[in-house]
Amino acid sequence: MRSVSIIGVGTTNFGILEGMTIKKLASSACNRAILDAKLDRGNIQAFFLGNYIGGILEGQETLAPIVACEIGLQKNVACTKVEGACCSAGIALRQGYLLIASGVYDFVLVGGVEKMSGASTAKNTEALAAGMDKDMEGYTGLTFPGYFGLVANRHMYEYGTTIEQIGMVSVKNRKNAVKNPRARFRKEVTLEEVLHSRLVTDPLKLFDCCPIADGAAAAVLCPTEMARSFSDKPIEILGSGHGLGHSTSYAMEGPSCTATVFAAKEAFQMAKIQPSDVDVAEIHDCFTIAEIVDSEDIGFFERGKGGPAVEEGLTQVNGRIPINTSGGLLSKGHPVGATGLGQVYEIVRQLRGEHENQVQNAEIGLAMNLGASGLVSTVTILRGVH
Amino acid sequence: MRSVSIIGVGTTNFGILEGMTIKKLASSACNRAILDAKLDRGNIQAFFLGNYIGGILEGQETLAPIVACEIGLQKNVACTKVEGACCSAGIALRQGYLLIASGVYDFVLVGGVEKMSGASTAKNTEALAAGMDKDMEGYTGLTFPGYFGLVANRHMYEYGTTIEQIGMVSVKNRKNAVKNPRARFRKEVTLEEVLHSRLVTDPLKLFDCCPIADGAAAAVLCPTEMARSFSDKPIEILGSGHGLGHSTSYAMEGPSCTATVFAAKEAFQMAKIQPSDVDVAEIHDCFTIAEIVDSEDIGFFERGKGGPAVEEGLTQVNGRIPINTSGGLLSKGHPVGATGLGQVYEIVRQLRGEHENQVQNAEIGLAMNLGASGLVSTVTILRGVH
Repeated sequence: MRSVSIIGVGTTNFGILEGMTIKKLASSACNRAILDAKLDRGNIQAFFLGNYIGGILEGQETLAPIVACEIGLQKNVACTKVEGACCSAGIALRQGYLLIASGVYDFVLVGGVEKMSGASTAKNTEALAAGMDKDMEGYTGLTFPGYFGLVANRHMYEYGTTIEQIGMVSVKNRKNAVKNPRARFRKEVTLEEVLHSRLVTDPLKLFDCCPIADGAAAAVLCPTEMARSFSDKPIEILGSGHGLGHSTSYAMEGPSCTATVFAAKEAFQMAKIQPSDVDVAEIHDCFTIAEIVDSEDIGFFERGKGGPAVEEGLTQVNGRIPINTSGGLLSKGHPVGATGLGQVYEIVRQLRGEHENQVQNAEIGLAMNLGASGLVSTVTILRGVH
Repeated sequence: MRSVSIIGVGTTNFGILEGMTIKKLASSACNRAILDAKLDRGNIQAFFLGNYIGGILEGQETLAPIVACEIGLQKNVACTKVEGACCSAGIALRQGYLLIASGVYDFVLVGGVEKMSGASTAKNTEALAAGMDKDMEGYTGLTFPGYFGLVANRHMYEYGTTIEQIGMVSVKNRKNAVKNPRARFRKEVTLEEVLHSRLVTDPLKLFDCCPIADGAAAAVLCPTEMARSFSDKPIEILGSGHGLGHSTSYAMEGPSCTATVFAAKEAFQMAKIQPSDVDVAEIHDCFTIAEIVDSEDIGFFERGKGGPAVEEGLTQVNGRIPINTSGGLLSKGHPVGATGLGQVYEIVRQLRGEHENQVQNAEIGLAMNLGASGLVSTVTILRGVH
């Protein structure tokens, strides 16, 4: 397996983007990534596009070849939409990485997109629940807020995690978003506001839940040995993991997502580093409790110590392991099919030294993307080549 | 790139399968493929599942990890749903092939599934049209029957192809299906019946159009050097192609699908053989005219000679190049996300010498899967190892 690097990234802002169709969103992010890579698009050999519910919400499938036609890729380019719920873009990146690392392709475009603002909240909730196993828990009416409420309650029961610690995730991430022009919400919230916001699903309140958004993100990959010809600051992919979890909450082994544990293990083994070597991370905070669980599943903190870590400020921009310096999904919004590469976009900016909330001397970054009820997860470890 | 072989295949019947959910369909085909491969499922390292409109019709996405949980794959298995309209399963096979050929994995499970009978004809038509570019031709109301009607008219205009030649595709395929227990329709039709069946979209009649169906198909792949340990009759993948076409009919260059031309070129170059070396083929006959266009795009016949070839019997079971000895989508039905691997299932049976319409001494087989309005295509060339 040869080394692979990211030579270009692009994103739209995340938010309510009126007039932007799902095709236009994806095309915009892809065009920006290609421009950033300074690559002649005729060199691109394959295109993987992550998308989750474009079929249900927008009646648009087969997006990868449609976007490829829109942005003018060659006719010998292999175009594939990949889907793994909210983990779709993480999977797209993973496919591109593996096919370059193994020598099949030299230049691959990967993207992710979702258009959500055209549908009502009810329709979005129904569509998002398509990641539940309909033969099993899906038929009970359980949706993702309900699922993460269960996880939060269990985490509090098992480890004594407090509702204040959980709420502090929101406070931290909203604070980080103030400087991020790509975020949907850029206004700080206080812990009091979080704790007294409207109850959504016990114990999670409104500000514990990420907002929907329209958005897209993309990246261009090539072998590291070629990367310097295109970018002054290529970002090397040190490790990639892709794990499988459980399809129902009652199959879970406590408040942990097995998929993330396996994905992180695979990525760290490949990268030959430890969680403590990571300088900055974007991890899947679809709900406040998710960030805490993720941080334990990845191995940043021991089991049960994720809550206290937030309280002690260890995950702030100047903390031991800065998490979601972008503002995370809680602030940026969660255009589900785009999120995984939105995270990678933020980490690439950190490792290039260009981020609005720059972590000093950040060299190793991690992006972690979770799908459905902890059903699927990808972990990507990146290194800035200075 | 190392040689890859198919060591097991499985399928459900194609038809109206009441009581079978989309998860059960996919799980059934996958379990049969694993059983056929005589493989301990703990060895499977990755799973690619093709599906097109499970989100729209069944409200079920994230099917790959859900099915993986159902059939008991390990938690370190990378599970991905891939989508490329009716070409979804062809793409799933392609991903598995590339990742074994390049040395990333040794054992990959690939599948495809669709559940259509739970929805009305109107809902199915609307869902299928999700493969149209909504920003462009999708908004005109053009659906796939209309699109292939345009292609048929143009083919007749350019080459003098007759409506009788087009109808003979249906007569041939329905005849082939009589012996195939996996087909939805197993009753012969006469040319008169085809020509006088109800008009759907000028010039295509009812019997020129494939029926919807529920169904799933799957295959297990491994390096050829290991294949003999599992199967007495492994089937080698000699070539794999994946091409991009046009997202609108008005961008097309005549009655031809560019995606297929590129996919076939790639597959034949890899296999180092010519179209004339192929002994048996399953190609995408979603409509009668599609089989004729496919047969020219692949290179079985010169441009414009696909119609006369059918009339001359060259594509019958005992013809020069037997096409759709299974009965094709016109008879089996077209569970869109499953079709590509349904074709491969039929070719594997031919190359094992076990098919109901066995082509004598068949050694080289070809499966060709087309998505949307010729937007994406995969071509797989297989060889029986005797």
